[in-house]
Amino acid sequence: MIHVAVLGYGTVGSGVLEVFRMNQEKIDRCAGDQVRIKYILDLRDFPGDPAQELIVHDFEQIINDESIDIVVEVMGGLEPAYTFVKRSLEAGKNVVTSNKALVAAHGSELLQTAKEHHVNYLFEASVGGGIPIIRPLVSSLTADEIEEITGILNGTTNYMMTKMFYEGADYDEVLREAQANGYAERNPEADVEGRDACRKIAILSSIVSGRQVDFEDIYTEGITKITAQDMRYAKEMNMVIKLLATMKQEDGTIGAIVAPFLLHSEHPLASVHGVFNAIFVRGNALGDSMFYGSGAGKMPTASAVTADIVEAARYQDRTICEYWSGNKMELKSRMDVKRKFFIRMAGRKEAYADRIREAFGEVQYLTADGCEGEFAFVTGEIKEGEYESAAAEFGNLIHMIRVAS
Amino acid sequence: MIHVAVLGYGTVGSGVLEVFRMNQEKIDRCAGDQVRIKYILDLRDFPGDPAQELIVHDFEQIINDESIDIVVEVMGGLEPAYTFVKRSLEAGKNVVTSNKALVAAHGSELLQTAKEHHVNYLFEASVGGGIPIIRPLVSSLTADEIEEITGILNGTTNYMMTKMFYEGADYDEVLREAQANGYAERNPEADVEGRDACRKIAILSSIVSGRQVDFEDIYTEGITKITAQDMRYAKEMNMVIKLLATMKQEDGTIGAIVAPFLLHSEHPLASVHGVFNAIFVRGNALGDSMFYGSGAGKMPTASAVTADIVEAARYQDRTICEYWSGNKMELKSRMDVKRKFFIRMAGRKEAYADRIREAFGEVQYLTADGCEGEFAFVTGEIKEGEYESAAAEFGNLIHMIRVAS
Repeated sequence: MIHVAVLGYGTVGSGVLEVFRMNQEKIDRCAGDQVRIKYILDLRDFPGDPAQELIVHDFEQIINDESIDIVVEVMGGLEPAYTFVKRSLEAGKNVVTSNKALVAAHGSELLQTAKEHHVNYLFEASVGGGIPIIRPLVSSLTADEIEEITGILNGTTNYMMTKMFYEGADYDEVLREAQANGYAERNPEADVEGRDACRKIAILSSIVSGRQVDFEDIYTEGITKITAQDMRYAKEMNMVIKLLATMKQEDGTIGAIVAPFLLHSEHPLASVHGVFNAIFVRGNALGDSMFYGSGAGKMPTASAVTADIVEAARYQDRTICEYWSGNKMELKSRMDVKRKFFIRMAGRKEAYADRIREAFGEVQYLTADGCEGEFAFVTGEIKEGEYESAAAEFGNLIHMIRVAS
Repeated sequence: MIHVAVLGYGTVGSGVLEVFRMNQEKIDRCAGDQVRIKYILDLRDFPGDPAQELIVHDFEQIINDESIDIVVEVMGGLEPAYTFVKRSLEAGKNVVTSNKALVAAHGSELLQTAKEHHVNYLFEASVGGGIPIIRPLVSSLTADEIEEITGILNGTTNYMMTKMFYEGADYDEVLREAQANGYAERNPEADVEGRDACRKIAILSSIVSGRQVDFEDIYTEGITKITAQDMRYAKEMNMVIKLLATMKQEDGTIGAIVAPFLLHSEHPLASVHGVFNAIFVRGNALGDSMFYGSGAGKMPTASAVTADIVEAARYQDRTICEYWSGNKMELKSRMDVKRKFFIRMAGRKEAYADRIREAFGEVQYLTADGCEGEFAFVTGEIKEGEYESAAAEFGNLIHMIRVAS
């Protein structure tokens, strides 16, 4: 029998209990042993809830119980999660988590601790919710050099971008609606500013490079400036606008960025609608692949957490999770990355055409219905540094969206 | 050092050598050891080819070489592949394969042999080419009861369906073009009649049920009767037509079928175009997910084969492949499966309306441009057995396509 302690009886924690209730037989069969939840750590009590009999209020009870093989950290945040995880690993207990903030901040150190104590630190649920992506990367795409990972890694913003694209709604309107429906939090900053997606692409970049990619080093731009007009131009170009978190690996260097991008409608990510997430992976032998599913939500996340519990139970005798070292990976400057830029400016095209040609070179002009009193164009492939110098000429006149290649 | 023998220097075999040449460093790093190809078995010689020095003509040389840890069977067909695989497993060598015909026909027996000899029989490349699906199913989706797997599992037919849908071309025209481009074989029967997709869904059904699903038991219908007119009706309904290989699991029983289906355009599989494959998986906790990529082709298939070589190298000390038993799974009769049916008939609607209502109940009539002298309708949800009885009333007058739910 394998004993599990769950830290935190919030959304994900209660989801894990529900998955066990639903699929106990399958879980035991796949784990090759009986897997049972023995404790749930929470400050609160839950009278009347079937979980109440498992509730404990003191972490010491868990860490001191030698029968506990697997600790499931679904509290979120950095503390006390970090201390509990660290101590659990040091006590020779496997740890499974959905806490992307902790993995992004202390992943390499905790993986090292796990290795030293011959246990596993597994975090499939921290990226892409229910979508299997971390295990496929480390156990299925092992014959490929990964050239690119581009993800729609945040359901809130993808819901908003989808609504704005298909319904022509404005940003503020869509945000209010998403908040009313529970798709966006009352304080939506972590989502709409791209910080949530940034932590996730940092984790994937660390796995791919085998070195620590600090999320603070990844340039991150949210969706707050995207307008209904931008969506009209996108349609004219047979494109969509998505918040993408992307990394490219070339000649041993990695470049990463989180920002809204114009994306051709034939790209597999372009048909990922609503709260769904997807991760596009390009390998040098495999070519293009994509992993699609529910990127958040109680049951999908709990499914991924529980699958990691099964994996930890299966491989109690070996560390299968050694993914990246603590050596920091220096990222390629975004200023050196070449791409096309879509630009809108207020005023008459004729008044600016000469200055634009001088600053950006040859560009392609566009029009869209309902976008009067302005003009728009797409540059050729230029370095972002070149774009910034050229754009500086026009100050605040410019509204820019990057074009995905 | 881990030594590999490759049986067959055809498309996939030469691809495996190319993947090793490209990504040797990554392969060794992931395997945790040096992995080297020592022999290639082929009847032919390849003078001038770098593979020539590895070529042997006699399988006995491989089976008798104790240094060979992993045998890669990429010959295809049932014999001598079966004998070589069986003998390799019995000799304590791991076997990796892309041979779906062999896995579908003798999978449970060979898995049993692998288990008895403490080695692995791995076949990720046999379904979905480069798309990781088998390992995700057995090591990532372990906390879910799988309710449905629906795949676009054949690139040739998906290329043809895509062309017919977007270009309005006829079946014969598209087949000729696909043959000219190398997307269809000169004898395309295994693809267009659905037999290739059938073997693949049989393998996935066996994994999900843990029991042997015989491909001969799966009702299989190809795309040869699909016309340009069908595509017009599909567009009218905001649907596409795809050759789907699908299994559903409910109350411990499994139903499976391969056939062209009308599919709503919002379904994630609907945007899978051209030669790409994708596998949609619904879990009872996870919800909907999809795995997308190159379902065939030299390098994607070789990538999956090589990843299995890495996995076999990693887990030399334990059998990780025990997926299904030899107990035969009896499939649910397709006659008991409920769905909607799209039906076209020559003639005037008015002449048949009464008989149609009597036979099929309430139906929804449709029109499409360029489809004169006929009419079409969609039934309500009825059992396939009910459909067949009703359709018998109209004999050869009826052209039917199933509607995916």
